[in-house]
Amino acid sequence: MTAIHPVILCGGSGTRLWPMSRKAMPKPFLPLLSDETLFEQAVRRVAGDDRFAPPMVVAGAAHADVIMAQLGDAPGAQLVIEPAAKNTAPAIALAAMLLPDDAVMLVCPSDHHIADSAAFRAAAIAAAGLARQDYLVSFGIAPDRPETGYGYLQRGEPLAGGYAIRSFVEKPDMERAVTYLASGDYSWNGGIFAFRAGHLLAELAANRPAMADLVAQSVAGGRDDGARFYPAAEPFSAIDGDSIDYAVMEKTARAAMVPVEMGWSDIGNWAALADALAGDADGAGNVQRGAVDLAQCSGVLAMTDGPRISAVGLSDVCIIVSGGEVLVTTRDGAQAVGKLPGAVNQ
Amino acid sequence: MTAIHPVILCGGSGTRLWPMSRKAMPKPFLPLLSDETLFEQAVRRVAGDDRFAPPMVVAGAAHADVIMAQLGDAPGAQLVIEPAAKNTAPAIALAAMLLPDDAVMLVCPSDHHIADSAAFRAAAIAAAGLARQDYLVSFGIAPDRPETGYGYLQRGEPLAGGYAIRSFVEKPDMERAVTYLASGDYSWNGGIFAFRAGHLLAELAANRPAMADLVAQSVAGGRDDGARFYPAAEPFSAIDGDSIDYAVMEKTARAAMVPVEMGWSDIGNWAALADALAGDADGAGNVQRGAVDLAQCSGVLAMTDGPRISAVGLSDVCIIVSGGEVLVTTRDGAQAVGKLPGAVNQ
Repeated sequence: MTAIHPVILCGGSGTRLWPMSRKAMPKPFLPLLSDETLFEQAVRRVAGDDRFAPPMVVAGAAHADVIMAQLGDAPGAQLVIEPAAKNTAPAIALAAMLLPDDAVMLVCPSDHHIADSAAFRAAAIAAAGLARQDYLVSFGIAPDRPETGYGYLQRGEPLAGGYAIRSFVEKPDMERAVTYLASGDYSWNGGIFAFRAGHLLAELAANRPAMADLVAQSVAGGRDDGARFYPAAEPFSAIDGDSIDYAVMEKTARAAMVPVEMGWSDIGNWAALADALAGDADGAGNVQRGAVDLAQCSGVLAMTDGPRISAVGLSDVCIIVSGGEVLVTTRDGAQAVGKLPGAVNQ
Repeated sequence: MTAIHPVILCGGSGTRLWPMSRKAMPKPFLPLLSDETLFEQAVRRVAGDDRFAPPMVVAGAAHADVIMAQLGDAPGAQLVIEPAAKNTAPAIALAAMLLPDDAVMLVCPSDHHIADSAAFRAAAIAAAGLARQDYLVSFGIAPDRPETGYGYLQRGEPLAGGYAIRSFVEKPDMERAVTYLASGDYSWNGGIFAFRAGHLLAELAANRPAMADLVAQSVAGGRDDGARFYPAAEPFSAIDGDSIDYAVMEKTARAAMVPVEMGWSDIGNWAALADALAGDADGAGNVQRGAVDLAQCSGVLAMTDGPRISAVGLSDVCIIVSGGEVLVTTRDGAQAVGKLPGAVNQ
């Protein structure tokens, strides 16, 4: 059986983790949870296992250097430079066109945290099995709370190693999210996919022919430079960008999902990072990074790249000092950080 | 009638306003409430009014330069350099020995805020009247809340322009503070006094003869240098320091008080500063100084000397960025700021 081809997507601006995440050095490339960055974790998650081929990374030119540095000595890794940010469907299609028609691609965001790599790999093997049968497969992440910030997958009839997807559900309100959690039939759509490359391109051509054509032109006019591939900019820039969910997954008759529990978090904001770091907390639930003095605090995340943070009497607050900026947010307020002037006007 | 001699005391470390207040530049010399510092306000409060003589300032050598700078062109002002910090009684005795025996001295801390200068001056005139009759007079500040952080003065029989003091009350518990507030017979002891210089020294000699003797030796061995006077260090350093309340006020049979409502605050911590700045607050009760972006905040005091502060979702919190330190404290926690490692280990 041929190896699975990891395709690691490095899009997204990560403004909700401002001021640590910046345009020039966004979330995937920061050592948020440990000394390793989320991108390095995404690479390592499928490294040293011959069921997986070397990764193909799709990213903007601005991040090529940091990616090469963080890839380290990953032999055979390839970097595809997106000429423009056009959301996930064109990025995935670029990778699909550069892979053999029969290659199974495993599409992974680079900015998610997955605590249980073994569970991830097991789900990837199951998803690859369905992809080889020309299913378009999404990882269905077991919800552990009534989250209103994610899309959901409703499972349908059982398949080998997974389920057909009965429906894609947009971000629900709290009442529906509670129902979904209780039913056990709904999973979070975590943006991790398995496709046979040729099948994905056929589905894209059927559903978004203009996009498929422009991606094909961009690859045909592209330039190879060692481990880097530069698709042609002009056709790519003309693409009407879209997510793979909207462009293909919600259109196809062959959508499937593989259920997985793997300690997943998209680290979508400072509160989510605090949750992911709970294992490092002191007895009062405080997590500290750098020079920090806390008194009478609980549930505080305090991270600094230099200046000391001193705090008294706070509960469930995140204090982030980075690059000359000081952010203080409640956990509940963390969703709004990306709309702050500092995050918007970088 | 001779003029009243303001004596402005510049002791105190002000660690509870760390990190803005530092040993090298403590609270009196900072522009906390406006462009003017508390010290400048203390000087200006009695300037340009011929009922008041030029001020005599008592301070440590470390702050002589900032005092001269902030005194500006105050003609006739004098600076007495304390050889050591020995609390208020020796500092006041130094000033008393340098003034004529019949001079009425008005002793004022330099680190308090007084919103109503006219009320202050009227109380000073009343207090001076009692001081000329050889009362030792304390300003009795009308309480507006059941404060447990101050000492109280219980008023006794009426005198011309004030009252005898029936008793001095140590910091009460909340139950007693509520009773004091309701009774109307109790005032805060704000540390503002009027004495006839010779009478104060006689009372000090009677109650603390060793202290009086050492201060007298220090003045006798002192050195005049233009507008500065340097008392001799050796005798002064041998003094067993004490507050004027313990050394004299609570011992004398002639303690009096002058009631006053003048918008007084000792700016004792960041919460008190936030209260004193309430007039500058936005509609949600937030006060900002420097580069600050607030979202979904109320009752927040945010002050920075450079780096931007961004905050989301906070209520009744003080965020202070100063000299490379970041402090975040609830209003309730503000009393504990002085015990933080950063404040203690300056």
